[in-house]
Amino acid sequence: MRVDGVHHRTVRLDDDGALHLIDQPRLPHRFGFVTTRTVEETAQAISTMIVRGAGAIGATGAAGVAQGALAAPDAGFVDAVDAAADRLRRTRPTAQNLFAGIDHVLAAARAEADRPALARQAAVAAAQAWADADADACHAIGLHGAPLVQDGQTWATHCNAGWLAFVDWGSALAPIYAAHRAGRQVRVHVDETRPRGQGARLTAFELGQEGVPHHVASDSSLAHWMQQGAIDAMIVGADRIAANGDVANKIGTRMAALAAREHGVPFYVAAPAATIDPGCPDGAAIPIEARDGEEVAWTWGWTPDGRFDRVRTVPEGTAIRNAAFDVTPAAWIAGILTEHGLVDASPAGMAAVLAR
Amino acid sequence: MRVDGVHHRTVRLDDDGALHLIDQPRLPHRFGFVTTRTVEETAQAISTMIVRGAGAIGATGAAGVAQGALAAPDAGFVDAVDAAADRLRRTRPTAQNLFAGIDHVLAAARAEADRPALARQAAVAAAQAWADADADACHAIGLHGAPLVQDGQTWATHCNAGWLAFVDWGSALAPIYAAHRAGRQVRVHVDETRPRGQGARLTAFELGQEGVPHHVASDSSLAHWMQQGAIDAMIVGADRIAANGDVANKIGTRMAALAAREHGVPFYVAAPAATIDPGCPDGAAIPIEARDGEEVAWTWGWTPDGRFDRVRTVPEGTAIRNAAFDVTPAAWIAGILTEHGLVDASPAGMAAVLAR
Repeated sequence: MRVDGVHHRTVRLDDDGALHLIDQPRLPHRFGFVTTRTVEETAQAISTMIVRGAGAIGATGAAGVAQGALAAPDAGFVDAVDAAADRLRRTRPTAQNLFAGIDHVLAAARAEADRPALARQAAVAAAQAWADADADACHAIGLHGAPLVQDGQTWATHCNAGWLAFVDWGSALAPIYAAHRAGRQVRVHVDETRPRGQGARLTAFELGQEGVPHHVASDSSLAHWMQQGAIDAMIVGADRIAANGDVANKIGTRMAALAAREHGVPFYVAAPAATIDPGCPDGAAIPIEARDGEEVAWTWGWTPDGRFDRVRTVPEGTAIRNAAFDVTPAAWIAGILTEHGLVDASPAGMAAVLAR
Repeated sequence: MRVDGVHHRTVRLDDDGALHLIDQPRLPHRFGFVTTRTVEETAQAISTMIVRGAGAIGATGAAGVAQGALAAPDAGFVDAVDAAADRLRRTRPTAQNLFAGIDHVLAAARAEADRPALARQAAVAAAQAWADADADACHAIGLHGAPLVQDGQTWATHCNAGWLAFVDWGSALAPIYAAHRAGRQVRVHVDETRPRGQGARLTAFELGQEGVPHHVASDSSLAHWMQQGAIDAMIVGADRIAANGDVANKIGTRMAALAAREHGVPFYVAAPAATIDPGCPDGAAIPIEARDGEEVAWTWGWTPDGRFDRVRTVPEGTAIRNAAFDVTPAAWIAGILTEHGLVDASPAGMAAVLAR
């Protein structure tokens, strides 16, 4: 997608192992890149959310394993690559794409383990192919989803499941971008998405760069705007989808889906098929990441005089509970969009996607 | 209630018309007072939310009319006091207590209009009595509500309906304070309450000063914590209650009540009887204040080096929708607590309170 008219990808791995990541914490006020060259740097970039979003961290994890392969000695090659994969898996617990991306490159490297030079090349190529596949899947989600978006509608979204959350295009925003490029009038209601403000900061930035009309509102106002008839449909991404269609996504998704159900607003989930975890029977089996309460206590942003700084709202010493994700039951979801099309959020729907 | 062990009221009117208001935007990091001496200063204190919360702005509006009476000339006394009341009414549109407090003092001044010196004294006395009645009503709410709070429970609340929102004690927090003082173990789950953070800043501060165990969490996580079984009951305040029991309260209340209903968590509303508007048939008739989107774009707080400053998260030029209140239907409310006890959120319940 475009920033100031120039096409960029969120995650880009060079052949020499340099990994270029859009520096997301400083958006929307400053657009730039962080480059990592080691497994540890890449793992830190995931943990500290320089890169975030299901597809983007999947591609980053994949690239990290390739960096591990490039740095691994000939002697003990497999052990070194395994250690790199283990380090990358310990960054964030919820996103299925992260583990899938790591495993994909790990398998490519291990397949050539007795020829380390070849294995290193194979790992880099596998990581690049994983990123390409992510972008292609998101593009296909957009084409499948665009017909759902009718002229003149307002669609709500929560968090950022746009191109900043993937390698390109995004999942939840892909149908909106596709409809917009097809000339349809569509407006996006953007949930602020506390505590980290991915909606206010990232989704608003993306939509602005692409010229899609939008507005930001606080998360807890969603039911009010639905009651007022101001929202026609809602679409969000997913960090993991269970085999029964339950969806783990950014904290607040469950409450948004509940409001949508109450107010008769169709609620869609969009995600690449790689987000479905066939080994996970239902939402209760998805581990939910508890993050540091300091994320809630402090808000980062730009001061009136242009410095990047933080301010504290919560009293010092106050206990804080900060769950990063929640689970939305399949029954509240109108449909799940993948690169293979729209299916029911149900065991049959998930099985149909996995059979492709 | 107590700050550092010293008893304070949120709003206090001296006989000479000096009005002392706790400076709420700078809480929890700095505790202090703003003193207003004119109607205009008092109106600005309400509009800019130096003072906020249904009961506190009711007492402040009442005091403002008294300030208007003290400043009104003998000739044209009634017109001057009427003008003061009109100015104060234009500060915020939703809270029933504001209009009730203004009207109460206006009636006292007008009753003695042909003896302006007496009328000025009557207005000050009426404003002070209004504040006393607010504190007494909240104390009674606490005593009536305390038996609902069982030992070992966690109660959630949204926004600040504690003593900072009233003259003393508060509405939603009064039963919790009463139960805590009676020796029961109770924990409070405090919604952050975007955009202004009244939960994170004010409710956490109050509870901390009173020694009540509590934690802060982002608004949109409430359904998750309810699903986890971490919340036993919820209680909020009200800015206006319609004759059928529909409740207007801080934005996010509707979504919280919906989550409570879904998860089988009893949802209570606590408010002085003066909050009920018999002229308002239902929630659809309650005007909802739209506030400046800059409240969402900027977050105020304290920097790591101790300055009070703000940071911007939303991109410059982005449209923002900022409704300050929403409406919760009576059917989602387990009961309404007033100084007269607990009643159903229904036309019969409201009529019973109004008949007292």
